[in-house]
Amino acid sequence: MADLHIQINRDKGGIAGQIASELRDSIRGGRLTPGTRLPATRDLATDLQVSRGVVVEAYEQLVAEGFLVSRVGVGTQVTPKNSVGTLRGSPRAAPLRAKPVRSTLWAGAGSPYYGHRPTSPDLGHFPRERWLAAVRHVLATVPSDALDYGDPGGVPELREELAGYLRRVRAADVRPENLVIVGGVAQGLSLVLHVLSQHRALRLAVEDPTSHRQVPLLRRAGAHLVPVPVDEEGLDTRRLSGDAVLVTPAHQFPTGVVLSPSRRAALMEWVFAGNRVILEDDYDAEFRFDRDPVGCLQGLAPDRVILSGSVSKALAPGLRMGWVAAPPELAEAIRRARGELDLGSPVIEQYALAHFLRTGGYDKHLRRMRREYRRRRDALVAALSAELPEVQVKGIEAGLHAYVELPDGWNEHEVARIAHTVGVSAEPVAPMREAPGPPAVVVGFARLPAHKAAEAVREIKGRMSV
Amino acid sequence: MADLHIQINRDKGGIAGQIASELRDSIRGGRLTPGTRLPATRDLATDLQVSRGVVVEAYEQLVAEGFLVSRVGVGTQVTPKNSVGTLRGSPRAAPLRAKPVRSTLWAGAGSPYYGHRPTSPDLGHFPRERWLAAVRHVLATVPSDALDYGDPGGVPELREELAGYLRRVRAADVRPENLVIVGGVAQGLSLVLHVLSQHRALRLAVEDPTSHRQVPLLRRAGAHLVPVPVDEEGLDTRRLSGDAVLVTPAHQFPTGVVLSPSRRAALMEWVFAGNRVILEDDYDAEFRFDRDPVGCLQGLAPDRVILSGSVSKALAPGLRMGWVAAPPELAEAIRRARGELDLGSPVIEQYALAHFLRTGGYDKHLRRMRREYRRRRDALVAALSAELPEVQVKGIEAGLHAYVELPDGWNEHEVARIAHTVGVSAEPVAPMREAPGPPAVVVGFARLPAHKAAEAVREIKGRMSV
Repeated sequence: MADLHIQINRDKGGIAGQIASELRDSIRGGRLTPGTRLPATRDLATDLQVSRGVVVEAYEQLVAEGFLVSRVGVGTQVTPKNSVGTLRGSPRAAPLRAKPVRSTLWAGAGSPYYGHRPTSPDLGHFPRERWLAAVRHVLATVPSDALDYGDPGGVPELREELAGYLRRVRAADVRPENLVIVGGVAQGLSLVLHVLSQHRALRLAVEDPTSHRQVPLLRRAGAHLVPVPVDEEGLDTRRLSGDAVLVTPAHQFPTGVVLSPSRRAALMEWVFAGNRVILEDDYDAEFRFDRDPVGCLQGLAPDRVILSGSVSKALAPGLRMGWVAAPPELAEAIRRARGELDLGSPVIEQYALAHFLRTGGYDKHLRRMRREYRRRRDALVAALSAELPEVQVKGIEAGLHAYVELPDGWNEHEVARIAHTVGVSAEPVAPMREAPGPPAVVVGFARLPAHKAAEAVREIKGRMSV
Repeated sequence: MADLHIQINRDKGGIAGQIASELRDSIRGGRLTPGTRLPATRDLATDLQVSRGVVVEAYEQLVAEGFLVSRVGVGTQVTPKNSVGTLRGSPRAAPLRAKPVRSTLWAGAGSPYYGHRPTSPDLGHFPRERWLAAVRHVLATVPSDALDYGDPGGVPELREELAGYLRRVRAADVRPENLVIVGGVAQGLSLVLHVLSQHRALRLAVEDPTSHRQVPLLRRAGAHLVPVPVDEEGLDTRRLSGDAVLVTPAHQFPTGVVLSPSRRAALMEWVFAGNRVILEDDYDAEFRFDRDPVGCLQGLAPDRVILSGSVSKALAPGLRMGWVAAPPELAEAIRRARGELDLGSPVIEQYALAHFLRTGGYDKHLRRMRREYRRRRDALVAALSAELPEVQVKGIEAGLHAYVELPDGWNEHEVARIAHTVGVSAEPVAPMREAPGPPAVVVGFARLPAHKAAEAVREIKGRMSV
């Protein structure tokens, strides 16, 4: 049994989070080696003089993130990391209740490139005053040379702040030199695929259903797409093939599924079994409502996972600001590509975001919006359940949209159209490769105030029965 | 003889510019057809009750821009536009005094991707207060939806303002729908080449010497480069080959040559003789010191010329903001590519630039900087002539750098190194393909205050003789 050396600061609160964080650091730092058994939750709770529930929560968090595995008859132990044999033998590799969700291609109406999306945040809450204050601070303080041709990898101050943020909030394993600042996840993916496919044609496994908006990007970048079905545990890792896989583990788009712990483990197994990489789109990771967000995959295997994220949900898509965290050599290749292709992102807003992160404005805004979005989500779910009990609402543990399965015979295009007429942002889901399942729409709740949800759903219902 | 219908507003000033502008519009609008003879300058001056010099200036401007041709024994006539036969017969096609300048590849020290360049503007003069005011205006006025996913072609308000600006200042023939807002000229070129080379490998003629920083971009985009020498009239059009040509007619980099009227005509002839296009980098066009800037090539053949420009010299490279003006179909293809690859440029600063243009802040800043840079240029040239009469200073009619040819035996790397040690931004020029000419350095004067030029050059001289 391991001596855990866990230090708790009782004044700080978030005891479960502190325990998880200490354990995570110990695993990363090598003090807790793969296979090490952890104390039973009851024993550790006694040792630390905390309630058992707190320890259970910490363990569950780390199991969800893939740092720990929990087996019947064995207890909880440190995941035999990078060890294919051990993972392969694990009973966890067999998924539970893996009922296939339909395989679909997300197909929206109108232009696929711009305008309002169901997944857009409520931009009425964009912190205009505080953002202006950040820009003012930048223009009052940066030296003139900062406005010259900059490092195409991004402003150093921002990479420093972001590395800290991603370590703290996403349990990522990044240093500033792993980060490249980009104009959002789309550009991040474009650059990564550009670099990865320079020497060989890349067979890229993608979730099916996936974001229809991304498919042209992936094809334009020269990737050969291999659709892999998504079920209620997320990407079906048993059907994986290709040289690389693009996943949205925090909140799958469009189904809203959070990748299950066993699938996370299986994904790690797959990536280490060959010379493969994971492109992790940290989609909707900021908005996990029911618990602390599960750490990103990148933190488990920083040499094999390329993490992309952006401020599009947290602040605004129009800022076009995001990041790629990649192993050092790849990060340098991406930076070099950007240094040739477009010389990097605009600098003033990079400095502004760094200031916003450093002064806590970003965290504060996120906390406020998380509360607000949770209220809106709950109101939408309640309204749907009261007014349209025929539909099944899924994927609402995180993110800004619900995946709404419709009864057989309902037309998803018609439902989306009607929702639009009453001001609710919805888009139909359409097949990509596999057999059809129930029709579904994605419904965005970020812009639907809680007090209007019931009325909006009633109105949709009314127009549907006409 | 044409009836010219020229309207002059004597209260406005800039009479020559008004005459040129009216004639340009008449040619574009088809009221003055190709081949039409214009009145003799003396006659038109009498008609309009202006001095003859004013008419000469207007005609010269339009000859320089390629709208008019002036032949001995024939007088001045509207250029037989798009007509290869007529231009081919023109005595202007034979260049005067076309002494070859050496063919070189521009090779700088240190990272080719970022940091201070000899061609960078003086960022100490970046209008921080006014830029902040523009951002404040944007954040106080734009609707929330403006912060959502935007048109990947750019914010409509900015395209509107820019189209007006480019028509007015660069004699470009653009409407907002021809424009795509991009992250600077590098991204503009990347996107144009990406789109042009989707269906065939593109043989791209490039100026030799050229910007060494651009070569990796062009190669990465899949272009096969065909170097074409630059002489004292600019690109040697007699030696052109390929499917497309990339030129910097306003101020060639690095030689500083302004493309001569006959070469402009020959370039037009070449582009219309085959299914070819011109990629026009409107490099340094903002800073023409000796006269009104020559209009861009794009205004002569909007169906064949793709114009790229940016605010990097006028405001700051760190803003990463520029534009591409292309024929509608190509503009749409570029916009679509951007809509997949990175979803467009950040919107707040696009709105800010639109506001800055609309309220005259951009013009005012340019006028102020043009005066200041002219002072600095004159001071540097005077200092070089007084202290180092052995060198030959070229290419100073426009732009932010001088092309300084060194006597045989001087080492351009050593000179650039010494200049750097005394704070003068200089980079050596090195061969690309052709036979060597005199060694040369590019010396930036934008950041060298006029009152320090003499001392700086004396110091360089002193250190060289050690």
